[in-house]
Amino acid sequence: MLTSLYTPTHVLLGQGAETKAGEELRKEGARKVLIHYGSDRIIADGLMKRVTDQLDEEGISYILLGGVKPNPRLSLVREGIEIARKENADFILAVGGGSVIDSAKAIAYGLYDKDGDVWDFYTGKRKPEGSYPIGVILTLAATGSEMSDSSVITNEDGNLKRGCNSDYCRPRFALLNPELTYTVPPYQTSCGTADIMMHTMERYFHSGESLELTDNLAFALLKTVTENGQKALSNPKDYEARKNLMWASSLSHNNLLAMGNDQRGDWACHQIEHELSGMFDVAHGAGLTAIWASWARYVYHKDPERFAALGAGVFGLRRTASPERDAEETIKAFENYFSSIHMPISLKELGINPTDKEIDELAEKATFWGGRTLGAFMILGKDAIKAIYTAARK
Amino acid sequence: MLTSLYTPTHVLLGQGAETKAGEELRKEGARKVLIHYGSDRIIADGLMKRVTDQLDEEGISYILLGGVKPNPRLSLVREGIEIARKENADFILAVGGGSVIDSAKAIAYGLYDKDGDVWDFYTGKRKPEGSYPIGVILTLAATGSEMSDSSVITNEDGNLKRGCNSDYCRPRFALLNPELTYTVPPYQTSCGTADIMMHTMERYFHSGESLELTDNLAFALLKTVTENGQKALSNPKDYEARKNLMWASSLSHNNLLAMGNDQRGDWACHQIEHELSGMFDVAHGAGLTAIWASWARYVYHKDPERFAALGAGVFGLRRTASPERDAEETIKAFENYFSSIHMPISLKELGINPTDKEIDELAEKATFWGGRTLGAFMILGKDAIKAIYTAARK
Repeated sequence: MLTSLYTPTHVLLGQGAETKAGEELRKEGARKVLIHYGSDRIIADGLMKRVTDQLDEEGISYILLGGVKPNPRLSLVREGIEIARKENADFILAVGGGSVIDSAKAIAYGLYDKDGDVWDFYTGKRKPEGSYPIGVILTLAATGSEMSDSSVITNEDGNLKRGCNSDYCRPRFALLNPELTYTVPPYQTSCGTADIMMHTMERYFHSGESLELTDNLAFALLKTVTENGQKALSNPKDYEARKNLMWASSLSHNNLLAMGNDQRGDWACHQIEHELSGMFDVAHGAGLTAIWASWARYVYHKDPERFAALGAGVFGLRRTASPERDAEETIKAFENYFSSIHMPISLKELGINPTDKEIDELAEKATFWGGRTLGAFMILGKDAIKAIYTAARK
Repeated sequence: MLTSLYTPTHVLLGQGAETKAGEELRKEGARKVLIHYGSDRIIADGLMKRVTDQLDEEGISYILLGGVKPNPRLSLVREGIEIARKENADFILAVGGGSVIDSAKAIAYGLYDKDGDVWDFYTGKRKPEGSYPIGVILTLAATGSEMSDSSVITNEDGNLKRGCNSDYCRPRFALLNPELTYTVPPYQTSCGTADIMMHTMERYFHSGESLELTDNLAFALLKTVTENGQKALSNPKDYEARKNLMWASSLSHNNLLAMGNDQRGDWACHQIEHELSGMFDVAHGAGLTAIWASWARYVYHKDPERFAALGAGVFGLRRTASPERDAEETIKAFENYFSSIHMPISLKELGINPTDKEIDELAEKATFWGGRTLGAFMILGKDAIKAIYTAARK
């Protein structure tokens, strides 16, 4: 089995990273930049001015497009493509978190693709053949989109949340100043922590042989993230905690932690959650923790040793003679951890209560109306997915 | 403090990785490739034919240049530049270990630099402004040159071993098939294991604050490498052990394990060893283990906690109330480990016995005749360096 790593993103990590935007854009040869962002806080707190001042200094012109919301919408992507095309933008600079970056990636795909519909890349109807270049100033440690090949967009027409993966969309640079995450609210800090953990675990629960080095690196990252997630909650301006989370977000999703493994990973929890946030617009990280233990209890019998090793590696759980029992303890330890950072461990705690009919619809959508199964650690069909949603209700 | 990571190398890891050489070269637009290698074993065992067959199939022409030896020589680099220029080569493919890759990097610098002397980049007289593109088929897990920005060349005129670092020389691709290291002899396997460990530790012993995530990743890598080094020695065809070592070699030297730290690292042991192998032509990895404990005992008082945490993280040593004592136990544990893989822990075991006069000359050269100090964890002048060489004699 051959595994691949391609991480061309130039990363700058530390205080003042965002002050290198002008220099990086110059090196990339950018002449007109579409600056994409979400909330107007970016402008109000002065970050945008610090960025545009650099562009002015470099003689690089720009246009602004804000308004990205969590679960970024296809309609804004289409608008961005149209504006960027009209203005002849040649570079997209995302200033924000994962939603902004994912939206920027979709715009970058659309710009490169002269004729067709960008949504085709998300339904799998067509594969991207290129992308305009993207850079990132990160303001939220969570999705890892700043180094990843992944972009997830929600089509409001049918509440469909779909992802597109290709190396073309990996950002040229990612500027990571942990101080820019000081103002991230506690709930979003916890969601981010959960998301980082899940990106690591979706790769850990692949099918097949695992590379010991990759497992050990994954345990090290998860251990660090669990500890620093709690620290950042206690003290939002804990620079070291924010720095650990920020860098972990990038490493958890750039494919480093799939090297030597079956790189397809599991991703069932992500797909199960995508349907939830498509239908109910919940926060991605919270949707994941609300689902995870129900997924884990459904599948762990397949290879309890894998769960047991995870609990020992991350939480230092003592091993017993029974991998089954150790696996159960591992699942409980993750539930306890999620609770400790105020993340939901059921759909009820997530604040939603889907009916049987809605669960049937969620499972139907998750399988693409019977067109696919989910997962790799264990293959899940519609009935299994329904069972997991149902168990997660509590 | 701002730290940077730039790892553009496309890595393929696993059985058959070398069969992707033609495809990677085509993607890079190569038309005439200088294939650089060391021993004729590459030809005798059929690897070269498997490579050139792919180039023939892709319609890419090539010329061969073998003869690279450990501590690669400037004379061969000059020869390579001349041949490649005459033949209009536009890509350098290194097939071998660190020496071959470093020699290829020097040729690639020289080709880009139309007029001057390539040695200038190694003495620091000039900085490279570009490089021809390089690709790697790796046959030895050790130096990490397959992803690194580093190249070390020995000038026979004066036995000077000097390094040049720049992002320009980072390989475009690195093809990592662990099976190609099955025939690496035990001594070289151990030297490689030591080199990987030392690349990690030179970065760990920087000066200043450390990022917890980076420390934990470093411990995870070192733990995995120590265990798999022993396994590869016991069974040279242990695929998983070879795979762990091979991927660890790349990760230990691509700067991942310096993120968030002062990226200059320590590197005193490397510089102290460079002079040794310049004068006595010893194997790099063995030179490092022969020196390390003497360096460690000279410097650990500066921050015993840092050593103590390393021993706990890598070898699971129990902490006591005394960081000093734990640091001493850590140093002993590394000595014991090096001995377990038959690496020397003194110059005597390395098979050399430098006179006082030679030690003075080594220290003189290491400081560039008084022009620089070594180290960062502790700054070392000529007297300190002499003391370390002397303590290492045993």
